[in-house]
Amino acid sequence: MATPLTDQEKRKQISIRGIVGVENVAELKKGFNRHLHFTLVKDRNVATPLDYYHALAHTVRDHLVGRWIRTQQFYYEKDPKRVYYLSLEFYMGRTLQNTMINIGLQNACDEAIYQLGLDMEDLEDMEEDAGLGNGGLGRLAACFLDSMATLGLAAYGYGIRYEYGIFNQKIIDGWQVEEADDWLRYGNPWEKSRPEYMLPVHFYGRVEETEEGSKWVDTQVVLAMPYDTPIPGYMNNTVNTMRLWSARAPNDFNLRDFNVGDYIQAVLDRNLAENISRVLYPNDNFFEGKELRLKQEYFVVAATLQDVIRRFKTSKKSTSVPLSFDSFPEKVAIQLNDTHPAMAIPELMRIFVDIEKLDWATAWDLTRRTFAYTNHTVLPEALERWPVHLLEKLLPRHLQIIYQINQIHLDHIASLFPGDMDRLRRMSLIEEEGGKRVNMAHLCIVGSHAVNGVAKIHSNIIKNEVFQDFSEMDEDKFQNKTNGITPRRWLLLCNPGLADLIAEMIRNKKSIFSNKKGKGKSVFMRILSTVNKYSYYKTDLVIGEDYVKDLMQLQKLNDLVDDNAFIRDIAKVKQDNKRKFAQYLEKKYQLNINPASMFDVQVKRIHEYKRQLLNCLHIITMYNRVATANHLSPPIPIFCILNTCTH
Amino acid sequence: MATPLTDQEKRKQISIRGIVGVENVAELKKGFNRHLHFTLVKDRNVATPLDYYHALAHTVRDHLVGRWIRTQQFYYEKDPKRVYYLSLEFYMGRTLQNTMINIGLQNACDEAIYQLGLDMEDLEDMEEDAGLGNGGLGRLAACFLDSMATLGLAAYGYGIRYEYGIFNQKIIDGWQVEEADDWLRYGNPWEKSRPEYMLPVHFYGRVEETEEGSKWVDTQVVLAMPYDTPIPGYMNNTVNTMRLWSARAPNDFNLRDFNVGDYIQAVLDRNLAENISRVLYPNDNFFEGKELRLKQEYFVVAATLQDVIRRFKTSKKSTSVPLSFDSFPEKVAIQLNDTHPAMAIPELMRIFVDIEKLDWATAWDLTRRTFAYTNHTVLPEALERWPVHLLEKLLPRHLQIIYQINQIHLDHIASLFPGDMDRLRRMSLIEEEGGKRVNMAHLCIVGSHAVNGVAKIHSNIIKNEVFQDFSEMDEDKFQNKTNGITPRRWLLLCNPGLADLIAEMIRNKKSIFSNKKGKGKSVFMRILSTVNKYSYYKTDLVIGEDYVKDLMQLQKLNDLVDDNAFIRDIAKVKQDNKRKFAQYLEKKYQLNINPASMFDVQVKRIHEYKRQLLNCLHIITMYNRVATANHLSPPIPIFCILNTCTH
Repeated sequence: MATPLTDQEKRKQISIRGIVGVENVAELKKGFNRHLHFTLVKDRNVATPLDYYHALAHTVRDHLVGRWIRTQQFYYEKDPKRVYYLSLEFYMGRTLQNTMINIGLQNACDEAIYQLGLDMEDLEDMEEDAGLGNGGLGRLAACFLDSMATLGLAAYGYGIRYEYGIFNQKIIDGWQVEEADDWLRYGNPWEKSRPEYMLPVHFYGRVEETEEGSKWVDTQVVLAMPYDTPIPGYMNNTVNTMRLWSARAPNDFNLRDFNVGDYIQAVLDRNLAENISRVLYPNDNFFEGKELRLKQEYFVVAATLQDVIRRFKTSKKSTSVPLSFDSFPEKVAIQLNDTHPAMAIPELMRIFVDIEKLDWATAWDLTRRTFAYTNHTVLPEALERWPVHLLEKLLPRHLQIIYQINQIHLDHIASLFPGDMDRLRRMSLIEEEGGKRVNMAHLCIVGSHAVNGVAKIHSNIIKNEVFQDFSEMDEDKFQNKTNGITPRRWLLLCNPGLADLIAEMIRNKKSIFSNKKGKGKSVFMRILSTVNKYSYYKTDLVIGEDYVKDLMQLQKLNDLVDDNAFIRDIAKVKQDNKRKFAQYLEKKYQLNINPASMFDVQVKRIHEYKRQLLNCLHIITMYNRVATANHLSPPIPIFCILNTCTH
Repeated sequence: MATPLTDQEKRKQISIRGIVGVENVAELKKGFNRHLHFTLVKDRNVATPLDYYHALAHTVRDHLVGRWIRTQQFYYEKDPKRVYYLSLEFYMGRTLQNTMINIGLQNACDEAIYQLGLDMEDLEDMEEDAGLGNGGLGRLAACFLDSMATLGLAAYGYGIRYEYGIFNQKIIDGWQVEEADDWLRYGNPWEKSRPEYMLPVHFYGRVEETEEGSKWVDTQVVLAMPYDTPIPGYMNNTVNTMRLWSARAPNDFNLRDFNVGDYIQAVLDRNLAENISRVLYPNDNFFEGKELRLKQEYFVVAATLQDVIRRFKTSKKSTSVPLSFDSFPEKVAIQLNDTHPAMAIPELMRIFVDIEKLDWATAWDLTRRTFAYTNHTVLPEALERWPVHLLEKLLPRHLQIIYQINQIHLDHIASLFPGDMDRLRRMSLIEEEGGKRVNMAHLCIVGSHAVNGVAKIHSNIIKNEVFQDFSEMDEDKFQNKTNGITPRRWLLLCNPGLADLIAEMIRNKKSIFSNKKGKGKSVFMRILSTVNKYSYYKTDLVIGEDYVKDLMQLQKLNDLVDDNAFIRDIAKVKQDNKRKFAQYLEKKYQLNINPASMFDVQVKRIHEYKRQLLNCLHIITMYNRVATANHLSPPIPIFCILNTCTH
């Protein structure tokens, strides 16, 4: 039996989290100390854990900058098709550890922080969650950004920089109390404001019919200030951009309107405009229909489409004279994450028809070829149905365009199904019952070339039940894309023990073959030898570790399904995690639990549809089953958490 | 006749703006490029003038950091008496050029920016004014900060970080329109937030009488977040701190109060708390009496005094056990810039009596020995007289304390002037006519050991007319401190030609004597030889240039008052400045003016008491006098600007 490896040796063998070179570590320590001094204006005598977190975050950020600039330059040179992911939510969580992992700096940073006499977990704990989402829909957006960057796609996330994210859940006297999530209070080292790309967004006003067409005039303007966050791919030198918009009042806001003569009140009223990006609506699968929410939806749409059009116009290969939008759908894909950004469809039509002076048919063809729509729910109470009178007031030109889209849409149905009035009623973008409303899902389906559900059963329901009328007309439009999660965050970061075990298993399996050719080692050594301070890694990973980018490789573990050693190792990883969690509970809540228990943890907002009560019944059932079926005495303890703070 | 010096040679002779060493310039260029890349995430292809400004500002700021940290450590070690300058206004203006001058980096930065192919004036133009003041009162505060740092005093400026400073003046159709001054929009590289020193400020509530004394309870809390700005002294390695407070709502703000059940509205209502530091009241010599203004005044006072007490308690020499406040007035001086921070007097009493449990007489003695008060105006409409009912609602405990101060005060007067009821009425802190009001000037006089006016005639009026009753009782308390301005900003920065000419003149005069001993050169060379990258200068300036720190040396110019060459040089400087101004007007407003004109420029808000109309009459009079008295044909042209944008 060989001598077991030390932890240090083990870590050095696994490049999954980057390679610890002496030079890297020295460079990181130097960067850390420089930022502590120059950026945070502190010395070690008075620095707080928050200062140390910021010093490390800035040091890690520095390693993104060159890659970020070069990636964007590369896209400009190559002019590939761009993917724009529009979403009212990006549930990003924390960024530091994820960034260190994705650019292969985790091990080197661990070592640097250790040498500095600090504790990495303490530092990581100082980071606020970027909780800009309610749950699955927002996290899906965040996972897609990670995956698109890892795939090297020219992708952009576009959303809102909410000043307050999802509420902090407090349980006080047995009741849930929602506390404001002031996540930006201590500064966000991962964003860069881009005031030079600020754009105007219009609201209200009226439509003027002129000889040159319709004009939206007498509007109120709110400015959209972009904040860019780098999105690094895993070990591929790609850094994409998530651009979130923040609402700013223009400097002359209100001064010539209703607050003439009351200067102070006029300045305070700037909040009315800036409230647009103030707070995430904590509505999960529920449509509330508030005007401020509609403003948010149009705000992100209007700012983003201006950016998209600007980038299309200035892209190298599109700058033909005269400018042509013929290639627009070949260069631009816009994915709508649920109907929240649905106003992008009439907005793009408005830009094409009113501003770029395309004829309606051309504009509509380009628009439909540009958009795709992801449906997230079929719950009726969650479907967005905006009252016509609200749209008429806030976005009068868009309402006209929606009517026109609907007219052509209904004419088409009528030609296919003459006399089927009920079908017209069912398929109309405008619902008439109980006050006129625009059915945003219908708008999205009509305005997109692809519609997907997020699970096989869900996509089937959409296709065959909820939107059956639409799939009858255009079957190929309806697809399924089962939601996934990024293995970088949800395996490497969240479950390091399991991630390392899998890497080891796959590598060992492989090495049975490859070692004969001496390949495994040579790839590894080649990587080590090419390390320099600007490029910590090559695109290729050590054999066995590339499952992190290609989960199909997990199939290789099938052979081990009955391997006792493997099963024991897996169980050990799980037991370790339970022990750590028990330690955390003891430290944080002075709760003493048995780590040998079965764990059943539900951390969620308290809400009927989350069915916390049903889970209580389930736990009792489980307990009875374990206790009675196994006749164990004492029975296996079950430890349950039905709620705790989500942050 | 000697060969005239080249510009480069001339610049090298004048260390007044720092010395251009090759190493300095290379270091600055390196810093600039590093910040452009890492801080601004830009390359030269896409960088804007704003990016260049920020890159330079960060580079210059880096040179302050070491000095700033060391200065504060030095104060901690030496524990000198601290001066706290409390002011609702700090009219700082721009910081970049002033900083370069004060730390002797101007010449080196000029050279670095030139070598980078950029224009220094373009960059400087990108900086927003920190317009946190109305006029003289606020600029006095800013000048004092510069002077105290230059004198090496352990001084602190304390005020409010208004999100919107003094309005931008627009003239539209002949009318003044006040536009919001969104000076923080593009980021402020000169401030560092200090969330770790955030402090609570209480409002409203009620007073509970307990056995341990009075308690202020059931209050509403607003948090005060400090932002620190470095204040470099001129060429002395001292960097003091201006700490401005920003209002933040606590995370549970409103959630348990009136907005229970409306989460979104509760989050939006955080603005109500945060409005405290939103906007500077543009009231110049006018008391408006708004509740929000009273909140501002108490906000800065409450946060600052907590900071003062904390610093006193943790200072090395004050940490006796048991803690004693006996030395408080020897260690702490608080200067009140007008009555705006007058609530500091009852607040310090509240801390001493209610929290620190000192007896009233001791507390009052310490308080009076701590405070001094600067009066700025005797205009009745400008004097702060807060209604008692407003104080009762917002600061009930402070009102009680003011009443108690007044009672003792009136008892004292009554003992000195028995039966003089009219004197009691005149001197009371509480005015009874037309609703009870607190006369804040009286509160300041009674609570301070020194009261000053800001000009000889003004101080005389205070002493002998407005506050005669008070000076009769305590004559020595009344002093004069004529307002001054810092020659660093208002001569070196604003009028570089004149500043350099004066330096040259004083040096030449001096060298008549000193050259005989060969001293002038040796001092200069000694400075040059001690330059290294962390210390660009010694405290001593080249002979002739130290007038910048000691204006009495200007007396040396008396001998030159009839020197024709000197008079010609002065006239040339003036003519150059007029020519530059004419060029500016042509470039910015397409105005063509004759630089040989007499210039009469009044740049101010438009307001009756600024008497713009009177100035019109004055100009006409001047014109007539010039035209008729000199019989010139054509007469000397007079160029007048009666207003333009102040920003």
